[in-house]
Amino acid sequence: MPDFYTIRWQPEGAVSMIDQRLLPHQVVYNSYQTPVEVGAAIRDMVIRGAPAIGAAAAYGLALVPWHTESEDPAEIISQLEIAADTLRQARPTAANLSWALARILERVNSSPMDTAADLRDLVLGEAKKIVEEDIAINLALGSQGQQVVPDQAVIIHHCNTGSLAAVDYGTALGVIRLAHEQGKDIFVYVDETRPRLQGGRLTAWELLQYGVPFKVIADGASGHMMRTGKVDLCIVGADRVAANGDVANKIGTYNLAVVAHENKVPFYVAVPKSTIDIHTASGDMIEIEERPAGEVTHAGSWQITPDGTPVANPAFDITPARYVTGLITEEGILSPPYPEKLKRLFQEKD
Amino acid sequence: MPDFYTIRWQPEGAVSMIDQRLLPHQVVYNSYQTPVEVGAAIRDMVIRGAPAIGAAAAYGLALVPWHTESEDPAEIISQLEIAADTLRQARPTAANLSWALARILERVNSSPMDTAADLRDLVLGEAKKIVEEDIAINLALGSQGQQVVPDQAVIIHHCNTGSLAAVDYGTALGVIRLAHEQGKDIFVYVDETRPRLQGGRLTAWELLQYGVPFKVIADGASGHMMRTGKVDLCIVGADRVAANGDVANKIGTYNLAVVAHENKVPFYVAVPKSTIDIHTASGDMIEIEERPAGEVTHAGSWQITPDGTPVANPAFDITPARYVTGLITEEGILSPPYPEKLKRLFQEKD
Repeated sequence: MPDFYTIRWQPEGAVSMIDQRLLPHQVVYNSYQTPVEVGAAIRDMVIRGAPAIGAAAAYGLALVPWHTESEDPAEIISQLEIAADTLRQARPTAANLSWALARILERVNSSPMDTAADLRDLVLGEAKKIVEEDIAINLALGSQGQQVVPDQAVIIHHCNTGSLAAVDYGTALGVIRLAHEQGKDIFVYVDETRPRLQGGRLTAWELLQYGVPFKVIADGASGHMMRTGKVDLCIVGADRVAANGDVANKIGTYNLAVVAHENKVPFYVAVPKSTIDIHTASGDMIEIEERPAGEVTHAGSWQITPDGTPVANPAFDITPARYVTGLITEEGILSPPYPEKLKRLFQEKD
Repeated sequence: MPDFYTIRWQPEGAVSMIDQRLLPHQVVYNSYQTPVEVGAAIRDMVIRGAPAIGAAAAYGLALVPWHTESEDPAEIISQLEIAADTLRQARPTAANLSWALARILERVNSSPMDTAADLRDLVLGEAKKIVEEDIAINLALGSQGQQVVPDQAVIIHHCNTGSLAAVDYGTALGVIRLAHEQGKDIFVYVDETRPRLQGGRLTAWELLQYGVPFKVIADGASGHMMRTGKVDLCIVGADRVAANGDVANKIGTYNLAVVAHENKVPFYVAVPKSTIDIHTASGDMIEIEERPAGEVTHAGSWQITPDGTPVANPAFDITPARYVTGLITEEGILSPPYPEKLKRLFQEKD
C-alpha cells in the first residue's frame, strides 16, 4: 500500500487533501474545516479529477452539521443548502460535484430527524458511502481489467488516471496498480502528456509510491516504442465515452490510439459506467475545450516560446471507436460493436 | 528578408554566430577569431544543425591564415592541419563538419601557392563557396517544394529545419518560407517537439521573423488538427534517408507520419541529396541515439518529474518509406517506389 492519500475525513471533523499543485516536488496535506475552504481548494485545483472532486464536495458538506452551533435540525438543513450552493460554484462543469451534493441533500430531505446529532451522522454517513462506493467501483474496474493484462506486460499509459484523480486506485492506472499488486511483471511507459504534464508529474509520482517499474517518455516517443516491438498494450482513461464508443480524453490520446492500431498493439479505455454518456450519440457531438495559451508557451515557470507566440491548445481529442480494442468497466469488458453493447449495458440496469 | 543571420564572415577576420542556446529569449551574436573558439562554440551548441556546423568549421579554418604571423606557406598549411583536428573533434559524428574540413584541406594541398596572402584568399574563398553552395541547394530544394504546396495551405511542421539549422532557408522550413515569400496563403501548426522543444523555441522564433502565420501546438495535438480536417500537408526534414526511402528524423516524426497517413494528409520529407545515404539499405540499420534523461525530466530550468524518475529518451525515430508521400530534393521531388528512384538519382551523377 502506498503511504499517501488523495482525500480523507479526519475524526476531529476536518477534510485533509494532498495539495496536487505542489506535486511531485512537495508532499503537503492541507486541512479544511469549512465548506468555503473546501470550495476554494476545489476551484484552485488543490484536488482535481472528477471522482475526487465529488468526494471533496461530499466531505465539505459534512463539515456543516459537524461544526454548527445550532441544535435545530431545520436550521442546519438550511445551512446545508447554502453550503451546497457554495461548493457547486467551485467548478460548475464537474458532473460528480453536483451529483454528490444532490445525493446528500435528497437523503437529508427524505429522512425525518429529531436532533442535530442525527443529522450530523446522516450527512457524514452518506458522504462516506459516496467515497466507499467510488473506491469499490475502481477496484471492480481494476479487477475486470486483469483479463487483458498478461502476466508479463509492457504498457503505455497517457495522462494521470490514478488515485490522485479519484479517491483511490483510479481507472487505467488502477488496472496497472492492481496488476502489479497481484504479482504480474509490469513495466509502464508513461507519456509525459504535454501540455500540463500530468504523466511526468503525477503518474510518475504515483508509480514511484507503488513501486511499479516505469520510464517517462516524450509523447512523440510512443510510436518508436511500439514500432520497435517493446509494447504489449495501451491503457488510458476517458473524460466521456459516447453511445457509439467514441472516446473523449486528454489531448494526445487519438495519436496514441492510431499508432497503436497501426502496430497491432491493443488499445483499452478504462472507464466507470458513470463516464459513459449514453445520451451523446457520437464523439462529434462533444465540444472540445480550448485551454489557456500559457500551458503551451510555458512548462511550469519556464517560458519556452518567444513573446507573442500564438498557440492552439485543445484540452481533449476524440478517438473514434474503431481504434478502441475494448472498454474496461466495473461490470466487465466490452468489445466492438459498441453501440449495441453499450445500449444493453444501460438497459439492463435502468 | 529576416533581419537575423545564423553565421557570417566578418570583413575584419572574425566569424559571427547567433547564440542558439539563448534563443528565443535573447538575440545575441558571438564573434570568434580563432579555430579553438569556433570549436568550443560548436561543441557547446551555440550553433547546431549539420549544414550550419559545416559552415562554422569552414570559416573556423579560414581564421588561421587570416591571423597567423607566419609568412611561410608550408608553415601555415601545417597550422591549418592542426586547426582542422581541433575543429573535427568538436562534434565527431557531424558528417558535414569533417566533409567541409577535408574539402578545404584537399584544395589547399592541390594548389601550389607562393605567398601567405595567396593561401589566405584560397582558404577563405573555398569556405565562402561551401556556404554559398549550401544556400543555393536550400533555395533549389525550397523551389522544388513549391510543386506540392498549394496557394492556400495549412501545414504541420516538426522540429526546426530552418535557417538556424543551415546557413539560410534550411530544408522543410525553407519550403514553407519560400511559399510565404511567393505570396501563398500559408498557415503553420508548429509541433513544439519535446523534449528539446526546437519547434516551440526556434521554429516559432524564425516564423515570427519571417511573418509567416502559425500556432504552436503540443506534439499530441497534431492528430486532432488532422482528424478535424484543418491540415493540407505535413513537411519535415531528416537526419538521414536510407536507400529504400526510410527516414530517420527527430523523435515524434513517426507518430506524425502514421496519423497523417491514416487521415490521408500528404507527408513530405525535405532533404538535400547529401542527407540521402545510399549505402544504408534501410532504416533498421540506423542506430538510434539515446540522449540524456535531463531533457525529459526538465523543460529548460524547470523540473517536471519527481527526483529519481527513470526516463527513455530516443533522439530519433524511423519512419518507414510507405508513410512518405514524397522526398523533396534540390533536383526534384521523388515519389514511391523509392529504392529504384534513389538509385537512379545517384547513378546519374556519380
